[in-house]
Amino acid sequence: MAELADTSKTSNQLPKTQKAIRLHAPRHVKVDDIPVPEIEHPDDAIVKVLLAGLCGSDLHPYRGHKFDGAEPFVKGHELYGEIVRLGSSFASASSGSNKAEGRPKGYATYRVGMKVIATFSVSCLECEYCIHGFTSRCVHSQLLGSPALPGAQAQFIRIPKAGGTLIEMDSSDLPPETAILLADILPTGYFATLQAFQHPNLASFLGRTNGLVDSYFNTNVVASAPNKTSVMVFAVVGLGPVGVCALVSLIDFMVLQINGARSETNNGSQSRPPKLTFEIIAIDLQEARREQARKFVEQITEESWASEISVKFLSPNDAVADSCHAVLEAVGSSPTLALSSQLARPFGVISSVGVHSNPVFPVPTPLLYDKNLSFAFGRCPVRTLLERSREVLARRQNAFKGFVGTLVPLSEAPTAYERFEKNEGGKVCFAPWA
Amino acid sequence: MAELADTSKTSNQLPKTQKAIRLHAPRHVKVDDIPVPEIEHPDDAIVKVLLAGLCGSDLHPYRGHKFDGAEPFVKGHELYGEIVRLGSSFASASSGSNKAEGRPKGYATYRVGMKVIATFSVSCLECEYCIHGFTSRCVHSQLLGSPALPGAQAQFIRIPKAGGTLIEMDSSDLPPETAILLADILPTGYFATLQAFQHPNLASFLGRTNGLVDSYFNTNVVASAPNKTSVMVFAVVGLGPVGVCALVSLIDFMVLQINGARSETNNGSQSRPPKLTFEIIAIDLQEARREQARKFVEQITEESWASEISVKFLSPNDAVADSCHAVLEAVGSSPTLALSSQLARPFGVISSVGVHSNPVFPVPTPLLYDKNLSFAFGRCPVRTLLERSREVLARRQNAFKGFVGTLVPLSEAPTAYERFEKNEGGKVCFAPWA
Repeated sequence: MAELADTSKTSNQLPKTQKAIRLHAPRHVKVDDIPVPEIEHPDDAIVKVLLAGLCGSDLHPYRGHKFDGAEPFVKGHELYGEIVRLGSSFASASSGSNKAEGRPKGYATYRVGMKVIATFSVSCLECEYCIHGFTSRCVHSQLLGSPALPGAQAQFIRIPKAGGTLIEMDSSDLPPETAILLADILPTGYFATLQAFQHPNLASFLGRTNGLVDSYFNTNVVASAPNKTSVMVFAVVGLGPVGVCALVSLIDFMVLQINGARSETNNGSQSRPPKLTFEIIAIDLQEARREQARKFVEQITEESWASEISVKFLSPNDAVADSCHAVLEAVGSSPTLALSSQLARPFGVISSVGVHSNPVFPVPTPLLYDKNLSFAFGRCPVRTLLERSREVLARRQNAFKGFVGTLVPLSEAPTAYERFEKNEGGKVCFAPWA
Repeated sequence: MAELADTSKTSNQLPKTQKAIRLHAPRHVKVDDIPVPEIEHPDDAIVKVLLAGLCGSDLHPYRGHKFDGAEPFVKGHELYGEIVRLGSSFASASSGSNKAEGRPKGYATYRVGMKVIATFSVSCLECEYCIHGFTSRCVHSQLLGSPALPGAQAQFIRIPKAGGTLIEMDSSDLPPETAILLADILPTGYFATLQAFQHPNLASFLGRTNGLVDSYFNTNVVASAPNKTSVMVFAVVGLGPVGVCALVSLIDFMVLQINGARSETNNGSQSRPPKLTFEIIAIDLQEARREQARKFVEQITEESWASEISVKFLSPNDAVADSCHAVLEAVGSSPTLALSSQLARPFGVISSVGVHSNPVFPVPTPLLYDKNLSFAFGRCPVRTLLERSREVLARRQNAFKGFVGTLVPLSEAPTAYERFEKNEGGKVCFAPWA
């Protein structure tokens, strides 16, 4: 990865062309020679890609969903790299100017040569959505590696709104193949967990108020306070890379809950802190995936929670209907969404972070009423959750040993896509300069 | 209503037969002579019905949904009445015994002659669901006025788990036609509002933490704190009786929020209390319903909020897509659910309290991801929300002047059902002893 280390610091020495993985037609990816991108807007950065991830949602256009095939486009939305160009909005690119003032911190601090990752969709950090934390629905939102915005499976990438979209990694001691998990899948797993854990329907079990139960109800209506010990059951549906990240995040949330340290979801009254134990049901159709996920969980060496958190790895048929307080859906398919709704108990919460392509909602509407189900769908606001995901990664680094199962040069893209689609070999990353 | 006042106090003087409205076939209700119910279980009560409501969800079996037509059954799940019999679990029915100890307070305090209402489905207050506030999913849950449990549109009704299901009204100075709103529709409207207001996705706008934005994010990532003034937009879809109750509850929540007194949803950090104004979009297809709803809202005489809360009454076509932070769906139909999803902005919340009978979910699944939508569905836990709904009613009594538009004897049931189905005449109640 060192061959461009010098050239990257000087603005006149980028090559004219580069290698990039482009999707030409469903199931047809090819390595093409294309122009190196240039700064198009003062907020842009050009990043030299040192590592690019292949993600489950890359498979949607690969399989022909949301891809009209008109023009080939560069794939990939996960990257670790180095800044090689910055637009004039950045202080370091226009010395003496105050253009960065009042803008997101990145415009003042980012410099050529810095190691970075990018959120998988553009986040300006200046619009109303970003400011309220909904960075995945930024008004400038574009998915990296979509027909509208060339992606990361290339040697160089142009990043719009780079003062928001890029995240500095110089100060991190995470190796690139771990850091890249922060571009999408670890925050996405964290988001799946957060949307369940912070939901009001779970609050009463976790010792918070929930807007339903109050002191009047406890004292004057029911004769006995809630049982002091209870078991909460969570399911993770789908044990691909995102599912494993959700599983690790979930265990992390539970350990913090047990230790009484879950501050950001723990804002309610603490009048009746319950004694809790947790059961996790980790579900996948494929035994190989279940075994792989079990291996990662077993790498979490901390023993203190062993008696309070149990994890079972099950095939869908072995899971019990109406048993789960919350279900984390980490696939985005009709069968997994239907299963999730089945597993949730009444007043259960389904947190679905998978990208759905089948338009038909697989659950009959009357069931939603009859079980008082709650759902949270959608794309993870990576930028907002970055620091907390980074903390999870720091605490649970052990879990991710061997997580990137395959590291390949761009030239092997066709085979890598094929194998990944068959769920073979775990998480895949490309090394564009290998 | 006085003719049974004496007999009701003595257990041997109930009549053998009574009048009751039964559904015989779709759109065919009839007043039948049937036996007066008896105590079947020690936790039962027999209540003399002084007023019985006709509710929108009564129309589902009337239209043939969820009704196989095998046996006619007594309709109605809203009642105001007087206890005339109590099973042996009640202290007053078995003097000297301690059977009521450790059980819900009603078993110790309820007496023959007391005025009561009932939650519209059985709530034991002893199971794990009830204790956590999910009383609408009590393990003993049965809907009053369903094939399994004869309903309230009769002169007498048997109430199971009456120590939980009945609510004492002797101490209330609400007139019966107002008190009966607490049996279902006002708590249901309150529930629709609560599920939206307490949702984490709205927290940041309301000055609470939401699990997304934290102090690190505010200080180190975005350059400027959230805008100090903002406008939140809520829609109420459907202005039938439940919709109007949702509208009044919503205004009540907003006034309390403006006054800084929303304690049960206000548990988060108060580090950046925003200056808020609210817009409500109240939507119905029928102009007559919109005008009626406007009349009720205008009866709320308090002027203090006039500059901070605006209410617009619109037909569905005049509402703006992607504009609402939260949508309260108060109908339970495919078109209203589809409209709700359309109106919600990204990261918006749809709180749906209507009873859905169409199995087809009317929103394409990819849109749920693309807009990061959250949903909360289901039956209101009336028992849990009773006291807070009663407070809303006390504060907003003016709104409900003239709310029960039609008060009719049981004998007029066929016409009353027909007119109600056509949305004519507002809320209907039956006076079984008239």
